Amino acid sequence: MPSSGNIDASLCCNAAVEAAKRAGQIILSNFYVTKVVEHKGKVDLVTETDKACETMIFQYLESAFPSHQFIGEETSATNGTPELTDAPTWIVDPLDGTTNFVHRYPFVCVSIGLVIDKVPTVGVVFNPILDELFTAVIGKGAFLNGQRIYASEQQDIGNALLATEVGTRRDKETVDLTTNRINNLLFEVRSLRLCGSCAMNLCGVACGRLDLFYELGFGGPWDVAAGALILQEAGGHVFDPSGSQFNMMSRRVAASNKHLKQALLEGLKGFI
Amino acid sequence: MPSSGNIDASLCCNAAVEAAKRAGQIILSNFYVTKVVEHKGKVDLVTETDKACETMIFQYLESAFPSHQFIGEETSATNGTPELTDAPTWIVDPLDGTTNFVHRYPFVCVSIGLVIDKVPTVGVVFNPILDELFTAVIGKGAFLNGQRIYASEQQDIGNALLATEVGTRRDKETVDLTTNRINNLLFEVRSLRLCGSCAMNLCGVACGRLDLFYELGFGGPWDVAAGALILQEAGGHVFDPSGSQFNMMSRRVAASNKHLKQALLEGLKGFI
Repeated sequence: MPSSGNIDASLCCNAAVEAAKRAGQIILSNFYVTKVVEHKGKVDLVTETDKACETMIFQYLESAFPSHQFIGEETSATNGTPELTDAPTWIVDPLDGTTNFVHRYPFVCVSIGLVIDKVPTVGVVFNPILDELFTAVIGKGAFLNGQRIYASEQQDIGNALLATEVGTRRDKETVDLTTNRINNLLFEVRSLRLCGSCAMNLCGVACGRLDLFYELGFGGPWDVAAGALILQEAGGHVFDPSGSQFNMMSRRVAASNKHLKQALLEGLKGFI
Repeated sequence: MPSSGNIDASLCCNAAVEAAKRAGQIILSNFYVTKVVEHKGKVDLVTETDKACETMIFQYLESAFPSHQFIGEETSATNGTPELTDAPTWIVDPLDGTTNFVHRYPFVCVSIGLVIDKVPTVGVVFNPILDELFTAVIGKGAFLNGQRIYASEQQDIGNALLATEVGTRRDKETVDLTTNRINNLLFEVRSLRLCGSCAMNLCGVACGRLDLFYELGFGGPWDVAAGALILQEAGGHVFDPSGSQFNMMSRRVAASNKHLKQALLEGLKGFI
């Protein structure tokens, strides 16, 4: 079975950047155009752009790395999410923030992660509207447009900017838990942001424009595979909202700078 | 007393654009720099940039229009908010989204409105980070970077993207009402965004990237004077969250496209 020892992670990162930039061009060129929308349930959207980006990214990376495995949001929507094995696996969200894309709200991105032996090894998140390219290779730091980035040094949760999302489920139990969780945390933090992109929220904590983030019930590992590594390489923490170890397949994530993990867990306690 | 009949509103708009762009340069040049912050209460912030921008904007517009009145966020923080008279009055927020500015979250803007006989007549909102300039002159339409903009044509609140903010008050009554209001509306809308800038939210509805917005308890008329006109000129509605007429001095605002005012009011009923 291949391990990271046989693979040049920096080379993989460069390929992911190229694929992300090509997909970003597709997104950018369609961003201000009225969209043809398929509905997957009441509040989830799939667009032609989403599908075109995933096909392009898969073809590009498959031709560079023919032995690697692939998990993508669009393919999984059709075929179910494959099991994550120890093989080098590219985990791709071709367009994170699909609702934003449909509405032309500028938080959309391509997210490409490479996981080897189940360990996130390469992460690339590219927002073509804001022209922000976040990259990380395990052990080599995190970067925004080539500049090293670090999570914030904020130590007081009362000064922290928190991000979350309200998801797509609208049953009463989920909505009540979502707003009760927000209610409890509002007494602790400075303010709250909802931008509509899980990957951009993780990168937001990584570059220090956010201090904290959590989300439960998002789409799948493609929302977090790249962002989690970028945040870890920026000195932040990624963990399960219960405090246990982060599991990429669990559709639950919490994120903090170096100092505020425990404070966030206190605020989430009883609401998970 | 001067009335709009004596004043060239397009000339005033051009001057406001020039002042906003100069202030935007100050904001942009300080955006990625660590900030010196004064605290006004636990979660409200004032920065040196905020003050520098207001001084610059006031001096620029005073020298062009020496007989006009001025209301600014910074000056009002020191001296209290002056009464709004029928005189031509510039209402200025030199830096809307101050918390975002401190955290380097990209929703910050300069907001400059001209009100004559208490009627919003000119509106300019400039976000120097996203390079978005929203402008409107009464009766002449609304524009983003020179292109005519219109509120969305969405007629189904189930497909609507709603924006709000959680404000700065953290007493239990306010926080509970804030999250109960969000809870009730989540059963109606597609999704929710919180970006941290009231003026950007109004402009978001104006250009159709948002369909609905409401906020209660924001800072003052400087948050809405420009954005309300921009939205009206884009074909949207601005009103009090209770359904009564919008009052710029009330620190309460609701906004919708042409079609969804009544649906938003239904969702807010009992939570105002």
